[in-house]
Amino acid sequence: MTVRVGVIGVGMIGQDHIRRITTVVSGCAVVAVTDVDAARAQEVGGGLGGARVHATGEDLIADPDVDAVLVASWGPTHEEYVLAAIAAGKPVFCEKPLATTEEACLRILDAEVAAGRRLVQVGYMRRYDAAYRALKAVVDSGAIGAPLMVHSAHRNPSVPSHYTREMAITDTAVHDIDVVRWLLGEEIVAARVLTPRRSRHGGDLQDPLFLLFETESGALVDVETSVNIRYGYDIRGEVVGEDGTAALGESSPVVVRRDGGATSAVPVDWRERFLRAYDVEIQEWVDACAAGECRGPSSWDGYAAAVVSDAAVEALHSGNRMPVHLRERPDLYAKAQ
Amino acid sequence: MTVRVGVIGVGMIGQDHIRRITTVVSGCAVVAVTDVDAARAQEVGGGLGGARVHATGEDLIADPDVDAVLVASWGPTHEEYVLAAIAAGKPVFCEKPLATTEEACLRILDAEVAAGRRLVQVGYMRRYDAAYRALKAVVDSGAIGAPLMVHSAHRNPSVPSHYTREMAITDTAVHDIDVVRWLLGEEIVAARVLTPRRSRHGGDLQDPLFLLFETESGALVDVETSVNIRYGYDIRGEVVGEDGTAALGESSPVVVRRDGGATSAVPVDWRERFLRAYDVEIQEWVDACAAGECRGPSSWDGYAAAVVSDAAVEALHSGNRMPVHLRERPDLYAKAQ
Amino acid sequence: MTVRVGVIGVGMIGQDHIRRITTVVSGCAVVAVTDVDAARAQEVGGGLGGARVHATGEDLIADPDVDAVLVASWGPTHEEYVLAAIAAGKPVFCEKPLATTEEACLRILDAEVAAGRRLVQVGYMRRYDAAYRALKAVVDSGAIGAPLMVHSAHRNPSVPSHYTREMAITDTAVHDIDVVRWLLGEEIVAARVLTPRRSRHGGDLQDPLFLLFETESGALVDVETSVNIRYGYDIRGEVVGEDGTAALGESSPVVVRRDGGATSAVPVDWRERFLRAYDVEIQEWVDACAAGECRGPSSWDGYAAAVVSDAAVEALHSGNRMPVHLRERPDLYAKAQ
Amino acid sequence: MTVRVGVIGVGMIGQDHIRRITTVVSGCAVVAVTDVDAARAQEVGGGLGGARVHATGEDLIADPDVDAVLVASWGPTHEEYVLAAIAAGKPVFCEKPLATTEEACLRILDAEVAAGRRLVQVGYMRRYDAAYRALKAVVDSGAIGAPLMVHSAHRNPSVPSHYTREMAITDTAVHDIDVVRWLLGEEIVAARVLTPRRSRHGGDLQDPLFLLFETESGALVDVETSVNIRYGYDIRGEVVGEDGTAALGESSPVVVRRDGGATSAVPVDWRERFLRAYDVEIQEWVDACAAGECRGPSSWDGYAAAVVSDAAVEALHSGNRMPVHLRERPDLYAKAQ
Repeated sequence: MTVRVGVIGVGMIGQDHIRRITTVVSGCAVVAVTDVDAARAQEVGGGLGGARVHATGEDLIADPDVDAVLVASWGPTHEEYVLAAIAAGKPVFCEKPLATTEEACLRILDAEVAAGRRLVQVGYMRRYDAAYRALKAVVDSGAIGAPLMVHSAHRNPSVPSHYTREMAITDTAVHDIDVVRWLLGEEIVAARVLTPRRSRHGGDLQDPLFLLFETESGALVDVETSVNIRYGYDIRGEVVGEDGTAALGESSPVVVRRDGGATSAVPVDWRERFLRAYDVEIQEWVDACAAGECRGPSSWDGYAAAVVSDAAVEALHSGNRMPVHLRERPDLYAKAQ
Repeated sequence: MTVRVGVIGVGMIGQDHIRRITTVVSGCAVVAVTDVDAARAQEVGGGLGGARVHATGEDLIADPDVDAVLVASWGPTHEEYVLAAIAAGKPVFCEKPLATTEEACLRILDAEVAAGRRLVQVGYMRRYDAAYRALKAVVDSGAIGAPLMVHSAHRNPSVPSHYTREMAITDTAVHDIDVVRWLLGEEIVAARVLTPRRSRHGGDLQDPLFLLFETESGALVDVETSVNIRYGYDIRGEVVGEDGTAALGESSPVVVRRDGGATSAVPVDWRERFLRAYDVEIQEWVDACAAGECRGPSSWDGYAAAVVSDAAVEALHSGNRMPVHLRERPDLYAKAQ
Repeated sequence: MTVRVGVIGVGMIGQDHIRRITTVVSGCAVVAVTDVDAARAQEVGGGLGGARVHATGEDLIADPDVDAVLVASWGPTHEEYVLAAIAAGKPVFCEKPLATTEEACLRILDAEVAAGRRLVQVGYMRRYDAAYRALKAVVDSGAIGAPLMVHSAHRNPSVPSHYTREMAITDTAVHDIDVVRWLLGEEIVAARVLTPRRSRHGGDLQDPLFLLFETESGALVDVETSVNIRYGYDIRGEVVGEDGTAALGESSPVVVRRDGGATSAVPVDWRERFLRAYDVEIQEWVDACAAGECRGPSSWDGYAAAVVSDAAVEALHSGNRMPVHLRERPDLYAKAQ
Repeated sequence: MTVRVGVIGVGMIGQDHIRRITTVVSGCAVVAVTDVDAARAQEVGGGLGGARVHATGEDLIADPDVDAVLVASWGPTHEEYVLAAIAAGKPVFCEKPLATTEEACLRILDAEVAAGRRLVQVGYMRRYDAAYRALKAVVDSGAIGAPLMVHSAHRNPSVPSHYTREMAITDTAVHDIDVVRWLLGEEIVAARVLTPRRSRHGGDLQDPLFLLFETESGALVDVETSVNIRYGYDIRGEVVGEDGTAALGESSPVVVRRDGGATSAVPVDWRERFLRAYDVEIQEWVDACAAGECRGPSSWDGYAAAVVSDAAVEALHSGNRMPVHLRERPDLYAKAQ
């Protein structure tokens, strides 16, 4: 069975997912596209040989030949398309963020709960990365005892000029927020943000940031975001337990000895680091669609990430510890994955 | 376009490729199967929903709905099916070995040269492994200068009781033979085999072996095969150049600190180590089929691996250095990959 | 020339230094000892063949055959002996802490400044560890740009039952405090302490702690203290700069592959980890004494460590960010080491 | 007690040992020197304040104030001085080689056996290196089972123009020969030498070499010597056992992340790599002298290294496998260390 996917938003990210669905992932095809830029939709759709080009996301969702919807449009439009897909009873993969406000996330939760079944998978791809999965397997095995702390670092070689200090939280650290919730299997209840000395590479930007999160059980999570660190795209993580620790290893497959050193390469960007995770993410989404199921990061995860990010932004602005208030978790989003 | 694959031989390896083509690789489907065990062919074919079950490999190859042929039958039958596929002008992926004798390999070379175009890809999956590809990229970059030596180790936790000392060459080290030819881009011209003290785990088996190969340029290659080493499936490799070295790194994505040590996991078996390489191997074969091309390890590579293995077996038996005599390389198999 | 050392306090630490001076370090000898426990002093002194046993530290310091004084007595007595050594114009090595109160440290500073030359070296041995020295060399080289953050972890397998949460700061993290001041070449200006979920191994003890320090330049330092982590004595450290990072490596000289993993040993305790640093520390002190100089961690460093520790303890008790107030640095303690 | 050392030969190596004895090692002093170059002896001796300058090595050995003799003169003179020290009943540390011919080594063995006690320690410093000691501890623990193979690599950044291919064996690989005998606790019984493609950096020099040794138990040892590899001084070693392997780790104490890579420094030369081993070697020699004992690499070890080296040189010249013939081991040199 081939899962027939409709893609809403065919900019850079949408096109990358189209390439993935067309040439990497098994069991699926892109049968319809749409975009706010109609010409771009025509161009991308034309290249797919037979894909329908819809005027609106709503039309695409209503298309009876579309089995599943992938939303890769501008963030503020996510809510509308996700709600429409839920209304149509179609599975939807929504790139992060689920929605741009807490209220919008809540409307999605309400709609999905009302629908009585999960339909939404949110694009937190780290959960599909082999290293993070190995890390979670160690934590879940009990080999290091109960987790007490997580040390995380999220380093980018550089960021574009429009990047703001808030984006270090909402666009960058939000991945750490999601992955820590998933690794520990619990919610974040408070956030603090500290502002170290600025890197000269960031100009006026407050970079790096040092974020601190507390979880329900009292575990303490620290996240360094360094988004102008030049040397590469480097994701570090260590879970400190009662009996030991588990940490992401070096990701380089080769060690080169020359010029006085033994060197492991660091990825140049997030594509290199997480390319495979994106592939697995979409393969598993397609497999779930084919099986009539919905797994992976849920609307609840998208909502929680949004609320924690909001609290962290407030903590950055105020300098204070900000509590995180989540609504009660509906049964639909049971803890176990 | 979907590449319609016919699979000859649906034992363990054939079924694994069917799973791969059906659920992992993009752009292909299994449309026909056959097996020497007709009942098994029926059972496996039936599970595929609509795949045709042929009485013989020849029938399968002749099936007009089969675009490409995958040979996963018993080694001694490979020649017959590969020749038939060449005769039919259909691309064929042949699990290693290409054939079980030098003469059979030569017949395949003759047929393919006569056909005037490459149709055969042989199943040396290491060339699709991310670590080996990174290793080759470093060598090819010139960063370590001209390669002078290669140190390789091929370690298995254990082998079945029917495993012989010759199989340590023809089944085990043959992967090192192929990958070294590919890494260095040159032929092996002589072989020696030394027999270290035996491991108690191998009983009467001469295990480990230490193989030595010389290449055209004079590079020296040593290969340790330790097939009862208990601790895991471990593939080590280092290319020593004039200006430095490049080595496969640790493959573990996570480091666990507990009980007095910081530990990286070693794969338990070849599946864990090379699972992804097999997926990429078949994806690239399918992509090449769709493009009307043939890439990857060629009949020539299958032939050369066979001749070098034969020389190594003779070296093992005689205790002498055995030269390797290859026919002149047809233009069809130009050096560059 | 042999530096003739008098040792005040011959308990476990004093005896270890006596062994070091007698059998490891070049150019020195123990010529006199004293201890609050006269019998122990007699016993230890007797074993040294000709060492004089003094009734008091003051007598020992006054002994004309004593060139240099090593204070390894109970912390609250340090001030008295250090002041006496300064008064006598003799170089003195004082185990940490320099003194147990800020006021006592200030009295020592005043005395040494009045003496017009440095006489005191405080026992912060990490500055003599090869790995920390290599780390400082990288930082000082400018290779990673200006330091913006330091991540430090101080892990003990277990602590005795009398260990308190304050000791995690004053006895444990104080080493991180000193080493960070030295690595960055600047003072700490504020402290915060967070209290993660407790390890079950610590019973009622608040363990781990997570300390945060700010330096003059705005660099942010985080220090994890985990003193019941079972798996070993593990000291981790990474300096994050504008252009890269420098981190302590694995300290294990051997990697063992067995039982499914490749394992580097973690030291079992601080002795194993820092044994050599202690040797180098005393060798360099003796060499300086012989040269009529005084180098290494100064009274100022001992004072600063005490004030920062006090602020951190206050931060632990109050839950607040506590500023660190240091007196103006006398010229005697110029920044450069 | 101070061990009073007389040093024969005060060239570069002799002066380095004098510095070590004078300023690094505990419990010893240089009281006498001599050199074939009398002016140099005067100059070096004068700098030591009170050391006697002897006209000949024999005079120095006869000096009643000399407790122990260190021979650091030109290789061909070693025999004469070692024999004289044995005749005088004084402990002697002899830099490698023990002597330059097998016959000379045998004369030393005969003399020492006749003396009835060990007096000679030969300068194989790797046995005092922390990493090699950790490696031996793992092997001896049985954790990896019986050793079946050893892989060793001895890499120098460059060699002087007078360096010959034979020196790659007698000066370079001889360290690997000694350390493997010690690691495995058994003798080498045969040698082969293979000659890979030459590095352009060595000009006419046959570099690298690949040496193969067999031990009594049948273990196979391979040693790569690459003496122009530019990137650093790198000593690699792995013992392959029945149940696992143990390998020397990376020796760099710091990992630097910058410019796209995570880099561990490789030592620039043998001094950096083995400086501490030399210190420990002499400290343990001095400690043994003080205790009236003699430990460490013996005359037997010096003799065995010479015979194995000779066989390897013959193997290099002939291209054949050369057996190693050792005399029966006298009881004086019992196997256990």
